[in-house]
Amino acid sequence: MPDERSDGSTVFIGQKPTMTYVFQVVTQLNAGIGPVVVKARGNAIAKAVDVAEVVRRRFLEGQVDVGPILIDTERLVNREGRDANVSSIAIRLTKSGPAPGAPERPKGPPE
Amino acid sequence: MPDERSDGSTVFIGQKPTMTYVFQVVTQLNAGIGPVVVKARGNAIAKAVDVAEVVRRRFLEGQVDVGPILIDTERLVNREGRDANVSSIAIRLTKSGPAPGAPERPKGPPE
Repeated sequence: MPDERSDGSTVFIGQKPTMTYVFQVVTQLNAGIGPVVVKARGNAIAKAVDVAEVVRRRFLEGQVDVGPILIDTERLVNREGRDANVSSIAIRLTKSGPAPGAPERPKGPPE
Repeated sequence: MPDERSDGSTVFIGQKPTMTYVFQVVTQLNAGIGPVVVKARGNAIAKAVDVAEVVRRRFLEGQVDVGPILIDTERLVNREGRDANVSSIAIRLTKSGPAPGAPERPKGPPE
Protein backbone atom coordinates (compact mmCIF):
# COMPACT_ATOMS: atom_id res chain seq x y z
CA MET A 1 0.00 0.00 0.00
CA PRO A 2 1.37 3.39 -0.94
CA ASP A 3 0.55 4.95 2.42
CA GLU A 4 2.56 2.40 4.36
CA ARG A 5 5.88 2.50 2.59
CA SER A 6 8.78 4.48 3.95
CA ASP A 7 10.46 6.36 1.15
CA GLY A 8 13.75 8.10 1.95
CA SER A 9 13.02 10.66 4.60
CA THR A 10 9.24 10.35 4.44
CA VAL A 11 7.29 7.94 6.64
CA PHE A 12 3.72 7.25 5.55
CA ILE A 13 1.36 6.37 8.38
CA GLY A 14 -1.02 3.49 7.71
CA GLN A 15 -2.70 0.63 9.55
CA LYS A 16 0.28 -0.68 11.51
CA PRO A 17 0.69 0.01 15.24
CA THR A 18 1.91 3.44 16.26
CA MET A 19 5.19 2.10 17.62
CA THR A 20 6.09 0.58 14.24
CA TYR A 21 6.19 4.05 12.76
CA VAL A 22 7.87 5.53 15.83
CA PHE A 23 10.78 3.12 15.39
CA GLN A 24 11.02 3.93 11.67
CA VAL A 25 11.19 7.65 12.40
CA VAL A 26 13.71 7.28 15.24
CA THR A 27 15.91 5.04 13.08
CA GLN A 28 15.93 7.50 10.21
CA LEU A 29 16.56 10.51 12.45
CA ASN A 30 19.43 8.71 14.16
CA ALA A 31 20.89 7.79 10.77
CA GLY A 32 21.43 11.47 10.23
CA ILE A 33 19.92 11.61 6.76
CA GLY A 34 18.17 14.86 7.57
CA PRO A 35 14.58 15.79 8.36
CA VAL A 36 11.92 13.09 8.41
CA VAL A 37 8.45 14.02 7.19
CA VAL A 38 5.59 12.03 8.75
CA LYS A 39 2.64 11.94 6.34
CA ALA A 40 -0.90 10.66 6.79
CA ARG A 41 -4.36 10.92 5.29
CA GLY A 42 -7.85 10.70 6.77
CA ASN A 43 -8.20 8.88 10.06
CA ALA A 44 -4.48 8.11 10.18
CA ILE A 45 -3.84 11.82 10.82
CA ALA A 46 -4.34 11.38 14.58
CA LYS A 47 -1.84 8.52 14.55
CA ALA A 48 0.70 10.68 12.74
CA VAL A 49 0.47 13.24 15.55
CA ASP A 50 0.90 10.44 18.09
CA VAL A 51 4.03 9.24 16.28
CA ALA A 52 5.58 12.71 16.25
CA GLU A 53 4.77 13.28 19.92
CA VAL A 54 6.13 9.90 21.07
CA VAL A 55 9.34 10.45 19.10
CA ARG A 56 10.02 13.87 20.48
CA ARG A 57 8.89 13.27 24.06
CA ARG A 58 9.89 9.69 24.80
CA PHE A 59 12.62 8.52 22.43
CA LEU A 60 14.51 11.64 21.37
CA GLU A 61 13.58 14.02 24.14
CA GLY A 62 15.11 17.45 23.65
CA GLN A 63 16.70 16.40 20.37
CA VAL A 64 13.91 17.00 17.87
CA ASP A 65 12.34 20.12 16.38
CA VAL A 66 8.79 19.75 15.10
CA GLY A 67 7.51 21.81 12.23
CA PRO A 68 6.40 23.19 10.02
CA ILE A 69 3.22 21.15 10.03
CA LEU A 70 1.27 21.38 6.80
CA ILE A 71 -2.27 20.28 5.99
CA ASP A 72 -3.82 19.75 2.58
CA THR A 73 -6.70 18.12 0.74
CA GLU A 74 -6.12 15.23 -1.66
CA ARG A 75 -8.58 14.09 -4.28
CA LEU A 76 -8.84 10.32 -4.38
CA VAL A 77 -11.01 7.81 -6.21
CA ASN A 78 -12.83 5.68 -3.65
CA ARG A 79 -13.87 2.04 -3.94
CA GLU A 80 -17.08 2.93 -5.75
CA GLY A 81 -15.01 4.75 -8.35
CA ARG A 82 -16.12 8.20 -7.25
CA ASP A 83 -13.95 11.17 -6.40
CA ALA A 84 -13.57 11.85 -2.70
CA ASN A 85 -11.72 14.56 -0.83
CA VAL A 86 -9.51 13.47 2.01
CA SER A 87 -7.47 15.65 4.33
CA SER A 88 -3.77 15.05 4.79
CA ILE A 89 -1.03 16.16 7.13
CA ALA A 90 2.75 16.43 6.84
CA ILE A 91 4.78 16.81 10.04
CA ARG A 92 8.45 17.64 9.65
CA LEU A 93 10.81 16.37 12.33
CA THR A 94 14.41 17.58 12.48
CA LYS A 95 17.11 16.30 14.77
CA SER A 96 18.49 19.29 16.63
CA GLY A 97 20.23 17.94 19.70
CA PRO A 98 23.41 15.91 20.13
CA ALA A 99 23.52 12.43 18.66
CA PRO A 100 23.34 9.61 21.18
CA GLY A 101 26.86 8.59 22.09
CA ALA A 102 28.31 11.94 21.08
CA PRO A 103 31.00 13.12 23.47
CA GLU A 104 29.71 15.48 26.11
CA ARG A 105 31.00 18.98 26.09
CA PRO A 106 33.41 19.34 29.03
CA LYS A 107 31.96 21.53 31.70
CA GLY A 108 34.33 24.41 32.27
CA PRO A 109 33.81 27.42 34.45
CA PRO A 110 31.25 29.91 33.11
CA GLU A 111 32.82 32.55 30.92
CA MET B 1 -18.28 18.67 27.58
CA PRO B 2 -15.24 20.93 27.69
CA ASP B 3 -14.03 19.87 24.28
CA GLU B 4 -17.23 20.89 22.52
CA ARG B 5 -17.64 24.46 23.65
CA SER B 6 -16.56 27.40 21.55
CA ASP B 7 -14.76 29.95 23.68
CA GLY B 8 -13.99 33.31 22.12
CA SER B 9 -11.74 32.68 19.16
CA THR B 10 -11.11 29.02 19.93
CA VAL B 11 -13.29 26.22 18.54
CA PHE B 12 -12.96 22.85 20.26
CA ILE B 13 -13.67 19.87 18.04
CA GLY B 14 -15.79 17.12 19.59
CA GLN B 15 -18.42 14.59 18.58
CA LYS B 16 -20.67 16.81 16.47
CA PRO B 17 -20.66 16.64 12.67
CA THR B 18 -17.79 18.31 10.86
CA MET B 19 -20.06 20.93 9.30
CA THR B 20 -21.22 22.13 12.72
CA TYR B 21 -17.68 23.21 13.49
CA VAL B 22 -17.12 24.55 9.98
CA PHE B 23 -20.05 26.94 10.43
CA GLN B 24 -18.77 28.03 13.84
CA VAL B 25 -15.36 28.83 12.41
CA VAL B 26 -16.72 30.63 9.35
CA THR B 27 -19.08 32.70 11.52
CA GLN B 28 -16.28 33.75 13.85
CA LEU B 29 -13.87 34.55 11.03
CA ASN B 30 -16.53 36.62 9.26
CA ALA B 31 -17.26 38.47 12.51
CA GLY B 32 -13.75 39.84 12.25
CA ILE B 33 -12.77 39.07 15.82
CA GLY B 34 -9.33 37.92 14.72
CA PRO B 35 -7.73 34.52 14.30
CA VAL B 36 -9.69 31.39 15.15
CA VAL B 37 -7.81 28.47 16.68
CA VAL B 38 -9.28 25.03 15.98
CA LYS B 39 -8.31 22.63 18.78
CA ALA B 40 -8.78 18.88 19.12
CA ARG B 41 -7.52 15.89 21.05
CA GLY B 42 -7.13 12.22 20.18
CA ASN B 43 -9.28 10.89 17.38
CA ALA B 44 -10.91 14.29 16.85
CA ILE B 45 -7.60 15.52 15.43
CA ALA B 46 -8.47 14.25 11.95
CA LYS B 47 -11.81 16.07 12.13
CA ALA B 48 -10.03 19.30 13.11
CA VAL B 49 -7.94 19.07 9.94
CA ASP B 50 -11.11 18.42 7.92
CA VAL B 51 -12.72 21.53 9.44
CA ALA B 52 -9.75 23.74 8.58
CA GLU B 53 -9.57 22.38 5.04
CA VAL B 54 -13.31 22.78 4.34
CA VAL B 55 -13.23 26.34 5.67
CA ARG B 56 -10.31 27.45 3.57
CA ARG B 57 -11.14 25.57 0.38
CA ARG B 58 -14.94 25.64 0.20
CA PHE B 59 -16.34 28.48 2.30
CA LEU B 60 -13.63 31.13 2.45
CA GLU B 61 -11.56 30.20 -0.56
CA GLY B 62 -8.55 32.45 -0.94
CA GLN B 63 -9.42 34.40 2.20
CA VAL B 64 -7.82 32.31 4.94
CA ASP B 65 -4.23 31.72 6.03
CA VAL B 66 -3.57 28.48 7.87
CA GLY B 67 -0.84 28.22 10.49
CA PRO B 68 1.06 27.86 12.54
CA ILE B 69 -0.16 24.37 13.37
CA LEU B 70 1.02 23.15 16.77
CA ILE B 71 0.90 19.68 18.30
CA ASP B 72 1.27 18.74 21.92
CA THR B 73 0.64 15.97 24.46
CA GLU B 74 -1.92 16.38 27.24
CA ARG B 75 -2.05 14.27 30.35
CA LEU B 76 -5.60 13.23 31.21
CA VAL B 77 -7.20 10.95 33.77
CA ASN B 78 -9.20 8.31 31.96
CA ARG B 79 -12.42 6.58 33.09
CA GLU B 80 -10.50 4.02 35.10
CA GLY B 81 -8.85 6.84 37.02
CA ARG B 82 -5.45 6.30 35.44
CA ASP B 83 -3.25 8.87 33.75
CA ALA B 84 -3.27 8.72 29.98
CA ASN B 85 -1.37 10.71 27.40
CA VAL B 86 -3.37 12.07 24.50
CA SER B 87 -2.08 14.04 21.54
CA SER B 88 -3.60 17.40 20.66
CA ILE B 89 -3.51 19.82 17.76
CA ALA B 90 -4.11 23.56 17.43
CA ILE B 91 -4.69 24.98 13.96
CA ARG B 92 -4.70 28.74 13.62
CA LEU B 93 -6.87 30.25 10.89
CA THR B 94 -6.58 33.92 9.98
CA LYS B 95 -8.78 35.82 7.57
CA SER B 96 -6.52 37.41 5.00
CA GLY B 97 -8.65 38.17 1.98
CA PRO B 98 -11.45 40.68 1.37
CA ALA B 99 -14.60 40.36 3.44
CA PRO B 100 -17.66 39.07 1.58
CA GLY B 101 -19.67 42.03 0.34
CA ALA B 102 -16.66 44.33 0.38
CA PRO B 103 -16.66 46.63 -2.63
CA GLU B 104 -14.63 45.27 -5.50
CA ARG B 105 -11.66 47.24 -6.58
CA PRO B 106 -12.59 48.90 -9.88
CA LYS B 107 -10.74 47.33 -12.74
CA GLY B 108 -8.82 50.05 -14.49
CA PRO B 109 -6.30 49.63 -17.26
CA PRO B 110 -3.04 48.00 -16.19
CA GLU B 111 -0.52 50.54 -15.02
